[in-house]
Amino acid sequence: MPRFRLTMLRHAMHAQGLDAMLVSSPSGIRYLSGFSGSSGLCVVTRRGAWCLTDSRYRLQAREELRCFRPLMVRESFGEAIARHSLLRGCRTAGVEEGELTLAGFRALRKQCAPCSLKPAGGVLGRLMSCKDRGELLHLERAVEITDRVFCDVITMIRPGVAERDLAAEISYRQRRAGADGDAFDVIVASGFRSALPHARASAKKIRTGEIVLLDFGCTVEGYHSDMTRTVVIGRAAKLVRGIYDIVLRAQEAGIAVLRAGCAARDVDAVVRRKIADEGYRRFFPHSVGHGLGLRVHERPRLAPRSPDFLEAGNVVTVEPGIYIPGRGGIRIEDVALVTETGSRVMTASPKELMIL
Amino acid sequence: MPRFRLTMLRHAMHAQGLDAMLVSSPSGIRYLSGFSGSSGLCVVTRRGAWCLTDSRYRLQAREELRCFRPLMVRESFGEAIARHSLLRGCRTAGVEEGELTLAGFRALRKQCAPCSLKPAGGVLGRLMSCKDRGELLHLERAVEITDRVFCDVITMIRPGVAERDLAAEISYRQRRAGADGDAFDVIVASGFRSALPHARASAKKIRTGEIVLLDFGCTVEGYHSDMTRTVVIGRAAKLVRGIYDIVLRAQEAGIAVLRAGCAARDVDAVVRRKIADEGYRRFFPHSVGHGLGLRVHERPRLAPRSPDFLEAGNVVTVEPGIYIPGRGGIRIEDVALVTETGSRVMTASPKELMIL
Repeated sequence: MPRFRLTMLRHAMHAQGLDAMLVSSPSGIRYLSGFSGSSGLCVVTRRGAWCLTDSRYRLQAREELRCFRPLMVRESFGEAIARHSLLRGCRTAGVEEGELTLAGFRALRKQCAPCSLKPAGGVLGRLMSCKDRGELLHLERAVEITDRVFCDVITMIRPGVAERDLAAEISYRQRRAGADGDAFDVIVASGFRSALPHARASAKKIRTGEIVLLDFGCTVEGYHSDMTRTVVIGRAAKLVRGIYDIVLRAQEAGIAVLRAGCAARDVDAVVRRKIADEGYRRFFPHSVGHGLGLRVHERPRLAPRSPDFLEAGNVVTVEPGIYIPGRGGIRIEDVALVTETGSRVMTASPKELMIL
Repeated sequence: MPRFRLTMLRHAMHAQGLDAMLVSSPSGIRYLSGFSGSSGLCVVTRRGAWCLTDSRYRLQAREELRCFRPLMVRESFGEAIARHSLLRGCRTAGVEEGELTLAGFRALRKQCAPCSLKPAGGVLGRLMSCKDRGELLHLERAVEITDRVFCDVITMIRPGVAERDLAAEISYRQRRAGADGDAFDVIVASGFRSALPHARASAKKIRTGEIVLLDFGCTVEGYHSDMTRTVVIGRAAKLVRGIYDIVLRAQEAGIAVLRAGCAARDVDAVVRRKIADEGYRRFFPHSVGHGLGLRVHERPRLAPRSPDFLEAGNVVTVEPGIYIPGRGGIRIEDVALVTETGSRVMTASPKELMIL
């Protein structure tokens, strides 16, 4: 598979007038070369492909690398590029501007001269956003684990349990179920805290009558899952039922319009309009969704000003929410695979309002 | 406390000829302003201090911010800086070049003109490296949790247990003990895998006679702990005992030379020489240690080419290792507070070779 990815990258480089590409993000390196170490740099030219890392990763690089020549370096990556003349004859090399730090860029630029460096992260980002069969298997496995763990922990969501203990349980169970780790810090937010769209799990205990919002995911072979469900403890106020229904219908409307060729901002618009029509526009302060893969947030962004168009093989989240400060918030999030004719929802957990 | 930090930052800015500082890293933002959200930008000028974030974090920003004016923005941070003329009259503003992406830098640079942006991450990094009393309390608490969890899981390190299950247990117990999360992915590496200095926990099961290397830490209020211990299951080969002893003596020699004023590279040199003297130079392929705080790797770097000098209040790791490919590796790591007269080791777990 990496051989095919390398070929695709070279085609894309050629189309952009790039003689080389310097891939610095761990996710980009893993995608192209198979190497999963935390420090590395892939250098791809029209003829060669090298993966630079240091001797801490010697054995790992030897085991994992496909199609790339390993180079164990003692100096900085830039110095190694210069010493081995990896960019000989290259005039322009692309870098991942959204992943590379300014310091990293300046160090590389100095050593790569006279080859000039140019932001070109989108070249790789677009390839990475269209998943092949092997990638979908990892994503499905990650989604499956997250679904299963949600089902397992439902019985533990009860009055008196601290948010952070529930979060610890989720994290533990995802690992025990075969995940490599959490996709991001598990969010468990109850009561008024559910109105904070990015609340972390706190020491607060869950109480009867409260909303509990759970947002979590795991990683399998580097691929992320991501799911949100919101439940109610004891009994649900009429307002909560009403809002839940609005969010659910908006979320389903978003999923219904997913399809290769559709503008990502149009998906956002459809979902946002559903919520605005019910008078909750200003209580939905974030974008509708994002691509998911080796990165937890990647192309395409389902947001009002997104320039992206959906392509077959994109895996995206659809996750609207309504948050009433001081009262609570509701968010529902699934992962879906975009196809030529529509989409296939990968998340299997039920979406009806659960009153526990 | 943040007021004092802001004053110190302004002094340092003045000394560097900076009219403003744009702090983009979550750790830097938290250090200065108290805000712990995952998306924000602090703008500090000689007169003003603003924390830009978006409305997802409205409640959190209101609760957490000290000394900084919250600004909820709908547009990009750069656009908001321009619209509110936050840099009016400023000619040069510093940015955190080691934390800011190239894309982030370019977006800011465009909007901040005519104010020019200059790499100045070291200004904040140096402040952050000297811990005050409040910070030390969080670090101590994080180190304490890690120590306790190590003590708890010792009985679980036995033949037949998978590395990843042990890692899951460690992660779970750190959270249950009050940690906010793991400081980094828990490393459990057994047998030949212990020779990979950055191995993750795998599905491999621990077997009798094997080395087991555990490297983990947690976070408390954003502050990280970090500890490594290496144990042996059943019985230790003579070679293993010998190497363990060399690593331990090298590690203790490193701790013994810690002291405010000492060059960080000299600490590295002392430890490296101890290992080289025994003939294992090429089996120690990483640096001796790093600063620890709101970032898991920060100033000072205890490495051969480090430009840093130790200061009182630095909290550093000392973590030499010897790794024999195919056989196994041993690493021992403590956290120590640098003082005017020496250091105080914060890690309390025993360091004698444990044969379980």
